[in-house]
Amino acid sequence: MLQDFEKCKPEDKDTLNAEIKELRARLIATQQLLREKKLPVLVLIEGWAAAGKGSLIKEIISEIDPRFYNVVSPAVIPESESRYPFLYPYASAIPENGKLIFLDSGWMENVVRKQLRLEISKEEYKRRVRAVNEFERQLRDGGYLVLKIFLHIDKKEQFERLNALTESADTEWRVTADDLWQHREYKQFMKAYDDFMEKTDETVKWHILDGTKKKAAVRDAMKLLVEKIDKALEKGRYTGEPFEEEFPLLKMPKLSEVDLSPAIEEEEYKKELKKLQKRLSELHNVIYRKKIPVILCYEGWDAAGKGGNIRRVAYPLDPRGFDVHPIASPEPHELNRQYLWRFWTRLPRTGHICIFDRTWYGRVMVERLEGFCSEKDWKRAYNEINEFERQLTDWGAVLLKFWIHIDQDTQLARFNERQNTPEKQWKITEEDWRNREKWPQYETAVDEMLQKTSTENAPWFIIESNDKHYARIKALRIIVEALEKACESHFENTYG
Amino acid sequence: MLQDFEKCKPEDKDTLNAEIKELRARLIATQQLLREKKLPVLVLIEGWAAAGKGSLIKEIISEIDPRFYNVVSPAVIPESESRYPFLYPYASAIPENGKLIFLDSGWMENVVRKQLRLEISKEEYKRRVRAVNEFERQLRDGGYLVLKIFLHIDKKEQFERLNALTESADTEWRVTADDLWQHREYKQFMKAYDDFMEKTDETVKWHILDGTKKKAAVRDAMKLLVEKIDKALEKGRYTGEPFEEEFPLLKMPKLSEVDLSPAIEEEEYKKELKKLQKRLSELHNVIYRKKIPVILCYEGWDAAGKGGNIRRVAYPLDPRGFDVHPIASPEPHELNRQYLWRFWTRLPRTGHICIFDRTWYGRVMVERLEGFCSEKDWKRAYNEINEFERQLTDWGAVLLKFWIHIDQDTQLARFNERQNTPEKQWKITEEDWRNREKWPQYETAVDEMLQKTSTENAPWFIIESNDKHYARIKALRIIVEALEKACESHFENTYG
Repeated sequence: MLQDFEKCKPEDKDTLNAEIKELRARLIATQQLLREKKLPVLVLIEGWAAAGKGSLIKEIISEIDPRFYNVVSPAVIPESESRYPFLYPYASAIPENGKLIFLDSGWMENVVRKQLRLEISKEEYKRRVRAVNEFERQLRDGGYLVLKIFLHIDKKEQFERLNALTESADTEWRVTADDLWQHREYKQFMKAYDDFMEKTDETVKWHILDGTKKKAAVRDAMKLLVEKIDKALEKGRYTGEPFEEEFPLLKMPKLSEVDLSPAIEEEEYKKELKKLQKRLSELHNVIYRKKIPVILCYEGWDAAGKGGNIRRVAYPLDPRGFDVHPIASPEPHELNRQYLWRFWTRLPRTGHICIFDRTWYGRVMVERLEGFCSEKDWKRAYNEINEFERQLTDWGAVLLKFWIHIDQDTQLARFNERQNTPEKQWKITEEDWRNREKWPQYETAVDEMLQKTSTENAPWFIIESNDKHYARIKALRIIVEALEKACESHFENTYG
Repeated sequence: MLQDFEKCKPEDKDTLNAEIKELRARLIATQQLLREKKLPVLVLIEGWAAAGKGSLIKEIISEIDPRFYNVVSPAVIPESESRYPFLYPYASAIPENGKLIFLDSGWMENVVRKQLRLEISKEEYKRRVRAVNEFERQLRDGGYLVLKIFLHIDKKEQFERLNALTESADTEWRVTADDLWQHREYKQFMKAYDDFMEKTDETVKWHILDGTKKKAAVRDAMKLLVEKIDKALEKGRYTGEPFEEEFPLLKMPKLSEVDLSPAIEEEEYKKELKKLQKRLSELHNVIYRKKIPVILCYEGWDAAGKGGNIRRVAYPLDPRGFDVHPIASPEPHELNRQYLWRFWTRLPRTGHICIFDRTWYGRVMVERLEGFCSEKDWKRAYNEINEFERQLTDWGAVLLKFWIHIDQDTQLARFNERQNTPEKQWKITEEDWRNREKWPQYETAVDEMLQKTSTENAPWFIIESNDKHYARIKALRIIVEALEKACESHFENTYG
């Protein structure tokens, strides 16, 4: 990669200018097509400090309508964002359909620096490389055009540029301590960049450009971009194929096999509830102090009792330390991005608890059954979700998933009760009745979901909820036990 | 206020429990009505450290459906947010229609602490108090129910509670250095709280509750909330009346008086463009270093040349330091909040430039003419916008507003050209033709807007754009001059 990179030969300036002009015109011409074909484009520009990443982006975007692109500099990740998974700033920044985004350095710089600073272990480095490959593949499979460019300059060139920047007070601030460190350790960085690029070159290829020849680099970058866009527009939006990956899965029963008779006496319920809530309240303090992020996922039949269950879990928590995210149909800005985006952007900070009232599993349930996504999309989602969840637990999150389960008779009784109780009528809609008619299809989908996504790190729990009290105690107990375990064990997986 | 606050007498526990139970039931019953009537509710809980703000909120929300509320702790404002105006975290957190939000301390704590730390001058304190009053009134006038509670405990009680917290490792972290400082300076804080509450008691009243009597405080807070909600639901959503405020206004010509003949020669255009862009590029560095936020607002007729003008301004800027925000029709989550919310959340950080391609002035143009808001709403908006913009310039922002102006013939010629040029057709829609028919109504609205919102701190500039080149040079020159002035003058108004 960088080790054997050959510098470009000087080219004729006028020819270059003419080429850039033509590419610029082509890029403008594709703007509207991007929009029509709803193609989202993510351009990642990595490279050496002072290699000219900003200027390169400036030249590429100069004639694009500002409505169609955005430039993001995750390099300046605020302190608060380091309380999220390392991919969080990038996953939050992905473009809407029909738009371009330019990342002025991104996940590569992030991971390489942390590694060289010894802030992450070798094991964690491997996990991050894997996560990056997963992230890029998921974007590609979700129809994103991803282009990765590395802007290269040698040590001598870097010296001259850093030097020039320090000569004026107005540009001096641009040279950071990190830049100087990189310059001193140029060789080590080169090795680390090479290693990272080699390991992330499979799904989306890297393109190394010579930053010394500014105009040629602009021409090359624009050419890559325009040609890739043209190709993507010609072929239409890509949809990834489903594939099998080896996730160690927990054995789950079929829903029809679940015994729904478990119940609890009123007296014991009250006693247990009080005890478990007290313990959860204590654990919340420990979690906060140890900075453990906690993600609780609720799925289940309509009227199964998700809301009441969630309220019993939320009650003992410090309101400053948790959020409940009710997940309804996506809004336009959510629908226009990869389906996990609206969950990425709702993740808790370390030390916080977040409860999802419905989750990303909508992909393999309602979206599958209502045809809101293609067959390939939902078939691929099992793996994508397993990967996403592994990224979360690798980050250090406690991730528990509850299927709140009832039988059809219980649902009918609760529907009727809602219908006949004025202050509960809002809880029941036409859609609920329609969904009820599709019970068998849903059951098939839920069974498949439970089989394919119950991993050791992010297990599913079927919560028998014909007796709501029983269901609440069971969920609370599982949460308390998982948090106790997490608080006891040393917390090694999270790095700032 | 606090000085003469009388402690509550002990009350019978069982009676209290019964009252709370009844209030809880009433609160649950209003949930659905809140949603139907689209009433948004903001509850601000301020008070002493360890007064029990978190527990109070916990008790209030315990039975509310998590889909209807949110708890926000702006006390933990990340470092990065201090690069925004002081009201930013609160303005960003306002609830959607039909939902409740609880702020666990907010703008009062923020302003009072900064003042006691001498981080803001007396003048700035006054400005912030004014901004708070404006903010609260704008929310109220926009139909928000705002409830402000101060939870009071005396110094002795605070001592005991802080002491108890430090006794366990799991709660010790809750006591911050700031809390201990507050405890030491209890008297001073009391004076400062009193002063702030007296000065912000007019539009939305303060309610002081006795934090020593926990249950009674819960009862009182819930009672306040339930009664206010009932009253608001009965009366229907409030719409504020327009009112006159004395903003010193710059004299603006009527659009019909504007001479649109100014033009520039090709040669001079190129020369000037290059010169101004070079200067702007240099100034961007200074702005970044001096942490001056810059907000450029573009409004104008369809096909007036906003896009091209913006591109010429953006070109010389470092892409890491600016954003362009194209403003289209609001999405549901935007429409469901006060109209300035989607602009608050798009403000630049200090040292950054942001360009709005259409702005909050939509309120007094398209929303006025298409009936998307009531007459009172748009008539009130002139003042609200002047206040909003003064808050931004008080923060230290350079705020410039451009009306890109052409005549009807020029628009027609450009519309026709777009219609007849295949690669430009996307730029012209049916809506553009419809808007064109309403030119006279728009002209009246624009004239009124220019008369009523051109303030010294946030002036309007009419940019003659029959000759697009002329328009670009004029806008660039205005920007460069304003930035030079801002960079020269000492930067006194911004506080972290």
